[in-house]
Amino acid sequence: MIKIGVIGCGYWGPNIVRNFNAADGAQVVAVCDKNRDVLKRIGKDNPGVHLCIDCSELVNSSSIDAVAIVTPVSTHYQLAKSALENGKHVFVEKPFTATSLQALDLIEIAEREKLKIMVDHTFLFTGAVRLIRQLIAEKKLGEIYYYDSVRVNLGLFQHDVNVVWDLAPHDFSIMRYLIKEKPVALSAWGCSHINKMEDIAYVTVHFPNRKIAHFSVNWMSPVKVRTTLIGGEKKMLVWNDVNADEKIKIYDRGVEAQSAQGIYDLLVSYRSGDMWAPKVEQTEALRLECQHFVDCIKNDSLPLNNGYMGLEVVQMLEACDASIKNEGRMISIENLLAVDQPSFPMDFEL
Amino acid sequence: MIKIGVIGCGYWGPNIVRNFNAADGAQVVAVCDKNRDVLKRIGKDNPGVHLCIDCSELVNSSSIDAVAIVTPVSTHYQLAKSALENGKHVFVEKPFTATSLQALDLIEIAEREKLKIMVDHTFLFTGAVRLIRQLIAEKKLGEIYYYDSVRVNLGLFQHDVNVVWDLAPHDFSIMRYLIKEKPVALSAWGCSHINKMEDIAYVTVHFPNRKIAHFSVNWMSPVKVRTTLIGGEKKMLVWNDVNADEKIKIYDRGVEAQSAQGIYDLLVSYRSGDMWAPKVEQTEALRLECQHFVDCIKNDSLPLNNGYMGLEVVQMLEACDASIKNEGRMISIENLLAVDQPSFPMDFEL
Amino acid sequence: MIKIGVIGCGYWGPNIVRNFNAADGAQVVAVCDKNRDVLKRIGKDNPGVHLCIDCSELVNSSSIDAVAIVTPVSTHYQLAKSALENGKHVFVEKPFTATSLQALDLIEIAEREKLKIMVDHTFLFTGAVRLIRQLIAEKKLGEIYYYDSVRVNLGLFQHDVNVVWDLAPHDFSIMRYLIKEKPVALSAWGCSHINKMEDIAYVTVHFPNRKIAHFSVNWMSPVKVRTTLIGGEKKMLVWNDVNADEKIKIYDRGVEAQSAQGIYDLLVSYRSGDMWAPKVEQTEALRLECQHFVDCIKNDSLPLNNGYMGLEVVQMLEACDASIKNEGRMISIENLLAVDQPSFPMDFEL
Amino acid sequence: MIKIGVIGCGYWGPNIVRNFNAADGAQVVAVCDKNRDVLKRIGKDNPGVHLCIDCSELVNSSSIDAVAIVTPVSTHYQLAKSALENGKHVFVEKPFTATSLQALDLIEIAEREKLKIMVDHTFLFTGAVRLIRQLIAEKKLGEIYYYDSVRVNLGLFQHDVNVVWDLAPHDFSIMRYLIKEKPVALSAWGCSHINKMEDIAYVTVHFPNRKIAHFSVNWMSPVKVRTTLIGGEKKMLVWNDVNADEKIKIYDRGVEAQSAQGIYDLLVSYRSGDMWAPKVEQTEALRLECQHFVDCIKNDSLPLNNGYMGLEVVQMLEACDASIKNEGRMISIENLLAVDQPSFPMDFEL
Repeated sequence: MIKIGVIGCGYWGPNIVRNFNAADGAQVVAVCDKNRDVLKRIGKDNPGVHLCIDCSELVNSSSIDAVAIVTPVSTHYQLAKSALENGKHVFVEKPFTATSLQALDLIEIAEREKLKIMVDHTFLFTGAVRLIRQLIAEKKLGEIYYYDSVRVNLGLFQHDVNVVWDLAPHDFSIMRYLIKEKPVALSAWGCSHINKMEDIAYVTVHFPNRKIAHFSVNWMSPVKVRTTLIGGEKKMLVWNDVNADEKIKIYDRGVEAQSAQGIYDLLVSYRSGDMWAPKVEQTEALRLECQHFVDCIKNDSLPLNNGYMGLEVVQMLEACDASIKNEGRMISIENLLAVDQPSFPMDFEL
Repeated sequence: MIKIGVIGCGYWGPNIVRNFNAADGAQVVAVCDKNRDVLKRIGKDNPGVHLCIDCSELVNSSSIDAVAIVTPVSTHYQLAKSALENGKHVFVEKPFTATSLQALDLIEIAEREKLKIMVDHTFLFTGAVRLIRQLIAEKKLGEIYYYDSVRVNLGLFQHDVNVVWDLAPHDFSIMRYLIKEKPVALSAWGCSHINKMEDIAYVTVHFPNRKIAHFSVNWMSPVKVRTTLIGGEKKMLVWNDVNADEKIKIYDRGVEAQSAQGIYDLLVSYRSGDMWAPKVEQTEALRLECQHFVDCIKNDSLPLNNGYMGLEVVQMLEACDASIKNEGRMISIENLLAVDQPSFPMDFEL
Repeated sequence: MIKIGVIGCGYWGPNIVRNFNAADGAQVVAVCDKNRDVLKRIGKDNPGVHLCIDCSELVNSSSIDAVAIVTPVSTHYQLAKSALENGKHVFVEKPFTATSLQALDLIEIAEREKLKIMVDHTFLFTGAVRLIRQLIAEKKLGEIYYYDSVRVNLGLFQHDVNVVWDLAPHDFSIMRYLIKEKPVALSAWGCSHINKMEDIAYVTVHFPNRKIAHFSVNWMSPVKVRTTLIGGEKKMLVWNDVNADEKIKIYDRGVEAQSAQGIYDLLVSYRSGDMWAPKVEQTEALRLECQHFVDCIKNDSLPLNNGYMGLEVVQMLEACDASIKNEGRMISIENLLAVDQPSFPMDFEL
Repeated sequence: MIKIGVIGCGYWGPNIVRNFNAADGAQVVAVCDKNRDVLKRIGKDNPGVHLCIDCSELVNSSSIDAVAIVTPVSTHYQLAKSALENGKHVFVEKPFTATSLQALDLIEIAEREKLKIMVDHTFLFTGAVRLIRQLIAEKKLGEIYYYDSVRVNLGLFQHDVNVVWDLAPHDFSIMRYLIKEKPVALSAWGCSHINKMEDIAYVTVHFPNRKIAHFSVNWMSPVKVRTTLIGGEKKMLVWNDVNADEKIKIYDRGVEAQSAQGIYDLLVSYRSGDMWAPKVEQTEALRLECQHFVDCIKNDSLPLNNGYMGLEVVQMLEACDASIKNEGRMISIENLLAVDQPSFPMDFEL
């Protein structure tokens, strides 16, 4: 039985507690939070769990095997470092760390201590992302032309990070998981309205061979939009994550050069072929992810969403910041990612 | 009675014929097209209309007062120039011309000859755009923070222009009509997949005072999306042009700094206030626009969508091309627009 | 060339004029309407057409081959009778007549005079209905269990008929076209709020073998709904006619008895299989229907939507009225339909 | 602290456990289920709870104050009777009982023993229903004309009840809560396809003064629909419960007699006024309901959803069965509801 301590139990933490408790072979034995009301509520729902205000108590405990760090990103490095140095595996919220140097340091410690790091890129475990990956792997879409994501909502300005660090980690991790080629450069443009943090940003990611990705992230939208278009040579796909029933729609052709008459038909028709909405597995993604963490510890295997993947995402976020500061200048990310690492496992199957 | 000749009657032309015929004080007396089948069809629906293959016949006719040019953009300049030099008012498809120099030349000829130029920026005459303009004028939204448009569909690669020149004229003209401030710079990024023309592009437009606009234009999308978000200090607006019933939705607040508890509430709630979908006037925009052209001729008044507006749009399109060629470098458009001109009339009311 | 006269040119009439003009081998030569403004507008769009106020002028004209009657239902019988007796083919709006006796009389005259009657059940010519019919014919849905239609909107109380006679002819004609078995009984319930005409009604149609149909028709709905569910043994189909892009969705299974675990899965999942939205042909239905009328005259063939089909629909509408007057009592329609007639051609293919 | 035992922990039970645990002043102390796996899972999530297979253990326990019965309807009467006779308050799933006589008997015992009965009509506690009730109370909609509900999905044939007893209790309880007038009669029609239980049914409820309600309930629909139209003299309302973001839409007018020109406008426009989507409170309804039960016990007050309301619903369900057996004959429900009872409190406010 892997004994887990959870640090930080505000918005997302209770989900972590619930899902680690549901995982086979794991149990949450301690929860730490600075807010006594939060602890009280956790205690009512989880009678046997040890509650504490001081997280060092949890990090030093000899009866804990792994720590889940569900706190603001500025605290990740110190908490994760302490945990690893005390022999604990680490599950940490995205983004992994506030800088890539911190991420590299944590990876090094974990490797030295033979401990696991998992960064909570939950989306990789959703039925939707897993299905898209499978469709791409089976060449159903053909050569990928573009990945275009709109991820906007009324946002949260109390974060210690801007909208890119808040929302784009989802897009970067999903993009990396779906598209085999490594990106070579990116440019980003951001704007702030309420305080100094950017609350709207646009990111363009460049791949070799005309492939591109574009993310629109926005904390100032009245509606929640989570729509990703993926255009392929053979078919095109729309992933609408706020649609409970038809998350993924696949359109049975892309664009081809048309005869003059064809032009006319296309213009008056919204689409030119059938659409197919495959059933999407609805198991809670966080449940699968927590189980994967537990299994990786038990089997001594590398998590899909390991420290290297977390590092890559942080490196791309840093590149975004650099581009934003330079009026959208294109920043090479070829070298940034060229650290001596095993890339995260693309052939992973849950 | 203003007698109108229409040059080009393929996809859009029949709508022009129908709406000029429906306009008070106007009649289509001649139609020119290179395709005999097209002419035949037009002739069946419009028994008395003169049909011709050679457009010079129409341009030189002494019985025609105005010419509507509904042909590819590369032909606009020569056709419009001939028409103006033969004393005819000109209604011309967007974009106005292939270069801003051509546009300047046409404006000069028209002013010298005391003729009208109208560029077919149809969207300005839609109930939706007119309503949004009124809402902004009445300060219902407060200070505007951003204008974000997604305009994507399965597109048409036979055009002589790229996706920016095809789709962004809508966004540039609407943006200029809605936002009083002049834009100061823009950057654009584009990519081509099928032929050499860019088929996907992203444009960012910069205003003074943190105001921004962003356009996503794409010919490779399996679904038709026409969604514009306009974020204001007081309220936010979503204009979904493919929604017949609820084109415009206004959300009754923007974003404010939140208490910790507020964060939690926002996160679990998709929006934090009421929504209001005002009735949108459904009169066909092209009908209003054609009537406006006829009225401007009769009353010798400046059209809303006059040559200067067409020029501005072409200048911004040229800036996009320059930015795309320079990896998204920011291009100043302050000077470009600083020709000695009356800006198009912002106080226009239909 | 079949020369066509159109009687009644208010709301729907201009579409009839336009589509008969577009049909190969036909031309609208005369239009009659009591409203001089209507005639004026028609005249502007159709320069050569003869305009008249008195429809007897049109019915008696020797230069007209066929008459399209686009007037209130109470006038259909007299107009159609005069037209047939003057040797003219008749195209008539739905519902065919105000009583089944009238319909029988017109059928008899037409057969005697060897003239065609076509009742304007436009929906049968839509891409959606034709596709559904094909899917059923190909046994894609399996045995049909039910047909459930909701057809509601803000309605029109000036009609001389109630909501059943206004909206249910669509459902009756589509149902008869799609389902091979003859219905045996129906019950209906209606309610009036604004004047004496029923403005809300519910109709249940009974077939042998557990097959049923249900129509909800309502003039008092704030939203326009045009949704039909068709449940089959193998698959289920949803036809949403106000969805421009995905009119027809086919779900890849129906309901089967489930194990206990299966129950749980069904409850937490909105659907249990893939969905498929085939491309729907978008040619204007009225255009195909007008062409079909012209072709039937030229080829002396029986129209799909002939007088017998019109009669059947009127008989079912009469049965609805009878049931409504008797608190929803079930009314047999087996005998009603048993007149000596060729049933309308189920094997028709456009 | 009210100590609660829960009987039946399959699909819905865990939600009951969670929400009673979250309620102030209550705690779940025992859970009973016949399935050992279910008990095991409950035990893992709720360490201190007593688990048992035999529900008599729970019913007889002196340390339990109230019992929540979350079992098939056929078992409700015996379980509730035992619980009441052992001095326990009863919270019971809808429908209350399998017959109205059983319901009357339980009400009598509870009154004699001064115990509370609450029937789990959860929908009454949703933000949507509470908001609609408030809008009606404030006369925002004007006189109500009709209530039309479509409640369909892929259903569950293992129940011991038909689709009316499964789904219509929601509609009956909501209808009774929203509409002050008592219904006088109802008719129902049902059909079975998979086994002997009706899987599709239509219910029409008659009120004095032209007011009507209609429910369409269906276990054979490929899509989940939960749409209720409420038409009023002044405004009309659409409640779409599967729309997370805009559950309730209010349209700012009903239907009025129109001039001829008005007809035309209505026909070409989907709606004739603004729409307003008020923010809907998102607190979990079951949480409010569980708290209400606990508060009623502590304050000795009558629950909103008390036994009489449960009785009324059962009586209307019995009337449906009677009508279905008689080919849709109208069944009076005036006398059925005329038992000597306090009607459930219409002036209730949470």
